[in-house]
Amino acid sequence: MKNQTYRMSMLYDFYGELLTPRQREFFDLYYNEDLSLAEIAENNGITRQGVRDVIVRAENAMQEVEDKTGIMKRFQAQRPLFDEIAAAAVKIKEINALQYFDPQIGALADRISDAVGTLKE
Amino acid sequence: MKNQTYRMSMLYDFYGELLTPRQREFFDLYYNEDLSLAEIAENNGITRQGVRDVIVRAENAMQEVEDKTGIMKRFQAQRPLFDEIAAAAVKIKEINALQYFDPQIGALADRISDAVGTLKE
Repeated sequence: MKNQTYRMSMLYDFYGELLTPRQREFFDLYYNEDLSLAEIAENNGITRQGVRDVIVRAENAMQEVEDKTGIMKRFQAQRPLFDEIAAAAVKIKEINALQYFDPQIGALADRISDAVGTLKE
Repeated sequence: MKNQTYRMSMLYDFYGELLTPRQREFFDLYYNEDLSLAEIAENNGITRQGVRDVIVRAENAMQEVEDKTGIMKRFQAQRPLFDEIAAAAVKIKEINALQYFDPQIGALADRISDAVGTLKE
């Protein structure tokens, strides 16, 4: 499961609030706090397999919502467009700084860079 | 309920696939096809109140997911940033077209406009 940490963290970011408190707790300890199944089991007085079951159910629940809605995929599809906008704004700024020294163009390019920076957060 | 059509259509766009087939069918007929509760009831051989219950449950289910995850809100928060980027790109293009006639700046501004247009779809 841990080889999927990046994907799981993204799912959790989108859909974590749909989990039960217990699913959320174990999921967070395992993927975000990087505890082992055995450690979580010991701290909670249940079996390693019991912890594993809770986490797998959490993963499946979130994956099912994503498979149905495709929302995470929609967000991810924005990424290359953000990168393209950011790159074009930098290039405009460079050309302006070398040739035209137009403060308005510089400021507008900065505004685009700032906005896309906020979008990429 | 119909005074909420815009908001309901957005909820449906994000979370419609999480509904049951029956919820989805009635919701779609009511909000997207603009049938009345009475018409849907007659076509399905159930009471007007029965149709209403299905639709209200669908609304509540989707609203609950949104209240927990805030995903739709996150998407909506992008809107003003897209508008800002689009406006800045248009302005750069205008300044360039009046003063500098730089084909590269024109092309870069167009690329930004196109990318933000795709994002706004």
